[in-house]
Amino acid sequence: MAYELYYWDGIQGRGEFVRLALEEAGADYVDVCRGPASKGQGMPAMFAIMDGKSEFDLPFAPPFLKDGDLIIPHVANILMYLGPKLGLAPRDEGKRHVLNGLQLTITDLVAEVHDTHHPIATSKYYEDQKQEAKARAAEFIENRIPKFLGYFEKVLEQNPDGSSHIFGGELTYVDLSLFQVYEGLRYAFPRATAHLDRRYPHLTALHKAVMKRPNIARYLQSDRRIPFNENGIFRHYPELDRDMA
Amino acid sequence: MAYELYYWDGIQGRGEFVRLALEEAGADYVDVCRGPASKGQGMPAMFAIMDGKSEFDLPFAPPFLKDGDLIIPHVANILMYLGPKLGLAPRDEGKRHVLNGLQLTITDLVAEVHDTHHPIATSKYYEDQKQEAKARAAEFIENRIPKFLGYFEKVLEQNPDGSSHIFGGELTYVDLSLFQVYEGLRYAFPRATAHLDRRYPHLTALHKAVMKRPNIARYLQSDRRIPFNENGIFRHYPELDRDMA
Repeated sequence: MAYELYYWDGIQGRGEFVRLALEEAGADYVDVCRGPASKGQGMPAMFAIMDGKSEFDLPFAPPFLKDGDLIIPHVANILMYLGPKLGLAPRDEGKRHVLNGLQLTITDLVAEVHDTHHPIATSKYYEDQKQEAKARAAEFIENRIPKFLGYFEKVLEQNPDGSSHIFGGELTYVDLSLFQVYEGLRYAFPRATAHLDRRYPHLTALHKAVMKRPNIARYLQSDRRIPFNENGIFRHYPELDRDMA
Repeated sequence: MAYELYYWDGIQGRGEFVRLALEEAGADYVDVCRGPASKGQGMPAMFAIMDGKSEFDLPFAPPFLKDGDLIIPHVANILMYLGPKLGLAPRDEGKRHVLNGLQLTITDLVAEVHDTHHPIATSKYYEDQKQEAKARAAEFIENRIPKFLGYFEKVLEQNPDGSSHIFGGELTYVDLSLFQVYEGLRYAFPRATAHLDRRYPHLTALHKAVMKRPNIARYLQSDRRIPFNENGIFRHYPELDRDMA
């Protein structure tokens, strides 16, 4: 049975980290909210699950994955679940937890990216918190991007199996997520990220290698890849961007 | 061999969710940063690992758990790893991921609690972002506490094995974490949380039941339980508190 991914229909957002893993693996999956109502798909199908009155595994928010009867929420959790099934994670339990730790650091980074444009209230418009967003984005560019990317660069450098992958000697879902982070940061903050290649050569090489993988390259050219836009997590607001010190 | 927990020595913070699981299970563990330098413990032991120049499993931030040679970072990841070993999670893989989904929702809540007092920059003092903190805390009290606690209350209500636990018919680490969230919110926002018992009766009952468990009761009375303070995640700043609508 096909995996069912539930996520907002018009953005890459957090769902994209899951889509990249499914696409790389060539997995059979349905992006439910983007499907036709005639097949019981579309956004109402997602809300029906979120409003469920009897499920023990009620999700708090999208994205979530449905695999048969099982509903699994949260990006890192979905990827940890799918990893071994898709051939994108080791089967050894301890190693899976190390990998999950890397993905959860990406989760934290993504939450901070979101808060650069919504530092005060998710329920309010960006325009109503633009001043605070400028302050938070400045901090993000000055301190947080270097901290996060510097960390991943160091982990790549220290990988005893070589710096082509963030973990072990083969592709994992965390490599795919790092590609997405790199893409997203460059979209949202083109000035701040102008010199990533000089600062983070291993991360830059990983980004390039992932982009060239046949299944990923095909996906990026397809209609299934939603373009970045200003409803997603990574948003390009020029007033929030600046050169990195 | 004893589990080694690495976390800042003066606060409950994120480490507390791990401590509660270890304490409930009566596990053999060392709270490394709070130990004596004469035994190679204390904060320098934590920094030595974080500054590691060769580890493939370098952690981004505390808390992290060391189990033999394995270093596992991030609260939800540590708890998912420890859960079955401590008898605080089912062994079935699918169910473990459902449980992990609940814990990751707590992770998100805790990050939002942190940002009520640091909405702009972790690197700056609270006093330098107090105005923004007031706005973010107001949003948190008005919209986010009800959203998160309402969700957990609903999951408790819908538990087919009864509302005494958030998942299944026995205690899991998520029950312990919900106790801590409840404690922390009441400490930080006594006005906003004045009527939790009326709004969230199942959550309130769970909080009481956890507090009475012998190992937890003993732990809460011990020196090992650091009191809440204004260096942690849950901070009591009266100017950020207000009655809930």
